[in-house]
This record gives sequence, structure tokens and C-alpha cells, in this order.
Amino acid sequence: MRVWLLDNGSIVIEHTQLMWNVPGPQVRIPVYSVLIESDDGLFLFDTGIDLDHMNRVLPFELPEQTEAQTIPAQLAACGFELGDVTTLVNSHLHIDHVGGNQLFAGTGVRNVLHAKELAQARNHEPFEFFGYSDHSWDCEGLNLDPVTGDFELAKGIFLYETPGHTVGHYSVLLNPGGSKPLLFAFDIAYTAAALEKGIQPGFHNNPHDGVLSIARVKSLAEEHGAEIFLSHDMDAWQGYTRAPGHYDV
Amino acid sequence: MRVWLLDNGSIVIEHTQLMWNVPGPQVRIPVYSVLIESDDGLFLFDTGIDLDHMNRVLPFELPEQTEAQTIPAQLAACGFELGDVTTLVNSHLHIDHVGGNQLFAGTGVRNVLHAKELAQARNHEPFEFFGYSDHSWDCEGLNLDPVTGDFELAKGIFLYETPGHTVGHYSVLLNPGGSKPLLFAFDIAYTAAALEKGIQPGFHNNPHDGVLSIARVKSLAEEHGAEIFLSHDMDAWQGYTRAPGHYDV
Repeated sequence: MRVWLLDNGSIVIEHTQLMWNVPGPQVRIPVYSVLIESDDGLFLFDTGIDLDHMNRVLPFELPEQTEAQTIPAQLAACGFELGDVTTLVNSHLHIDHVGGNQLFAGTGVRNVLHAKELAQARNHEPFEFFGYSDHSWDCEGLNLDPVTGDFELAKGIFLYETPGHTVGHYSVLLNPGGSKPLLFAFDIAYTAAALEKGIQPGFHNNPHDGVLSIARVKSLAEEHGAEIFLSHDMDAWQGYTRAPGHYDV
Repeated sequence: MRVWLLDNGSIVIEHTQLMWNVPGPQVRIPVYSVLIESDDGLFLFDTGIDLDHMNRVLPFELPEQTEAQTIPAQLAACGFELGDVTTLVNSHLHIDHVGGNQLFAGTGVRNVLHAKELAQARNHEPFEFFGYSDHSWDCEGLNLDPVTGDFELAKGIFLYETPGHTVGHYSVLLNPGGSKPLLFAFDIAYTAAALEKGIQPGFHNNPHDGVLSIARVKSLAEEHGAEIFLSHDMDAWQGYTRAPGHYDV
């Protein structure tokens, strides 16, 4: 199984969004997607931001995304094109994880997402407005496949329910039986420091569930000896191997 | 029924605590209690901050409380002393609503509070640490009387469950049949602007419930033609009649 991290640019958020109720300076955070090539197909987890949407609705997040940081360009850097992706999975449906979904309309891709997340994004809480403000994923030509529960999506690709940040947030564990399991916990916490301290993001749906999900991710990582990847840790991101470099797991 | 607002000082909080996820400058907010004299007794709602606790555990909130702003001094300004209070009610058990509870130990006061709030304050979420950091209310000599549901505490004093900010938060409606009903919604939202926009405080237990409670308070106020009082609106506070001045309702 080969894994690439696809750079999708960056945005700026308040420190109290990075760590709930913890004051500090604004911070620029990375946005990225995860591409997995396995015997069962080509899997893409999340699709970053749609720069036009960000500039239109959330310009205060100072979005940055070069042409080379778009999904097509990142796929090309790895030797693929949009039509090669067999399964698109969204960890959740926030703006910085769905921006490129619309590009897959008509490609025949299977778009896996949590059934609760689908329902919530279409009928969200008032305080979730910005998070769910990009609905371009809800378009013709995408084969939405709502799922629930923990399950093995394909050989060695395990999805785990980790709600709190959003109601239908999924984390993914790759090749738990192998020598180098990876656990993408996405937005459970934004940084390694936040995860360590158990501080969830300022944007959340249910902080009680968020506490349980942080504990669950830590427990899964320990049980399987997996390395945890979080979506928005700029320091960690600088040290990751990025596409076209890759991890073999 | 006569109502006094007892000044208990002030603290400084982040703007994202005043309004969840809304950035802005730090703000100094008032802390106050509500004293009600009725045919059924003398009722005190909340008891402000304990300055020693604040200086020890939350000095970053820059607490201010003069001797004249303590519960005994405020009661005296209204012609009462601690032993005159028959019923102490806590809207919830956060630090800025329980600081003076301990002063009533041994006075025979009945201390009404929500049963869920009592349980939560004794075994809170990690993210509720600061809010529930003052446990001086949980002392010998106070007759805790945990209650649940909406009910008429005494003639014309109605308690309504309004969870979200905390699990067992109560609001109180005074004399709904009278010419000037008052609705103390405490920490449902911190300011009139926040209430108007439906923005709950940055510190909360369950934001989904918080949305419902904001709607409930607005609905109750409209139904009964009541004026809404919030606990932490400095602009509104400057305009309120404060003890020894009073409202006759």
C-alpha cells in the first residue's frame, strides 16, 4: 500500500479555533488530502479547499492555493488523473476537506461519507455555518455512498467513527498488521500539542464526544503502534514526506 | 415582589468566550447576583466570585471585587444579613456564580440547584476545569437541594431548564402575570447582542442544547412580555438599577 500526502494550500485561523478557548496569535495551517494506492483501487481521503469559495465566503481566513496545490495537479505529480480515483472518502464535510469533490462529478467515483455527516451538512446547526458553507460536493454526478459504523473499507483500510468535531467524522487506520501503520485522525485535534493536551478545535459539534474521540484515537494508535497524522499541524506538516514523495505501509 | 441586583465585581475574558469563535479584544464583564424578597421568603440567585479563588486559580481574568462588592456588604446595603436569606439558588455552578455560597454554611439556608449540575460539577469534562474550579460551595453546613425540571419555586418565581452552557443551567422568570415580568437568563448568552445573534458563550457543555435554550428564553420572554437580563453584559449592566436601588415586579 502506497500513501501520498497531497498539498492543498493553507488558511489562517484564530488560535482559539486551533485550541478551544486557548488564546494566542492567529496561525496559518496546512490543508492536505491523502491518496492511497492499494490492490483494491485508488482511494482519496478529502479534497482540500475550493479557493474560489474561500475567497468569496471566508476571505478572512486568507486562503492560499497555487495551481500546483490543486487536486488535479497533485494527482498528476503522483502519476494519476481524476478518473483513476476509484473511491473518494470524506473524513467530514467541512470546507477544507471537500473543496475538490466537485471535480470528480461524472468520473464514476464512489464517494464514501458518514450518513450522519451527510444529513448534518445539509441541515446544520447555526454555529456550523462557516464549516459547512461549501456545498459544491452536493452536486450531480457524484455517487454519494453514506455509511455508518466502524468497518474495513478495503483490505487494510479501516474507518473508525470519531465524532465531536462534527457528528459524522471518520478517522482511518492503514495496514494495522504491517510494519508501519498510519492513523489519519484528521480534525480530532488540529496539532500534536492539542492532541497531547486533549484540547479539541474551537469549531465542534459536541465537545463531550470530542473528548471520547481523542481518547479513542490515542488508544487505537497505541494498540496498533500507529503513527498519528493530524490535518492542521504546520510544524508536523513541514516534516512529513509530501507528494510526489510517499510512504509505503 | 422586590428585586435587587447585587454587584459582585468584574472579570476579564477573551472575546471568543463572550461570543464563541468570534474574535475581538478582551472585555471586562460584570458579575452580579439577584436578590428577591417575596411573601415566601428571601431568595438569592447566585453569589458572584470568590476573589481569593480567582486570584489563585484564574489571575489571568484580572478579577476585581471591592469589599463593598461582597455578598455580605451588598445584602447589608439592602437592609439584610446572611441569615435572612431563606433560599439560595444557583443558576449553575461556575466560579462566577458560586463564590459566596460558602458564606451561608450553617445559616440553615436551602441551596437549590439542578441535580445534573451538581453531578457535573463534581465530575466534569476536562474542558470544564476552569468553570468548575471553585468547589467551596460543596462544603459542610449547606443544605443542598438538587432539583430537576421546570417548576414554580415559590409564588411567582418560576425556574426553567436552559442547558447548553452547562448541563444543569436554570433561568428564572419573575411574576409572569404581573405588569413587569423579569427573566433572568444568566449565561445562556453573555450579552444582548450575543442573544440577538444566537451566539452562545465560548465555554459550553453542549452547543446543540445551547441553541435550543437561547430559543427557549426568547420564546418565554415574548410569551410573558418579560424583560431579559443576562449576567455578563457590561453595557446593559451600566443601565440597570443596582442595589440598593430595586425593581418592584
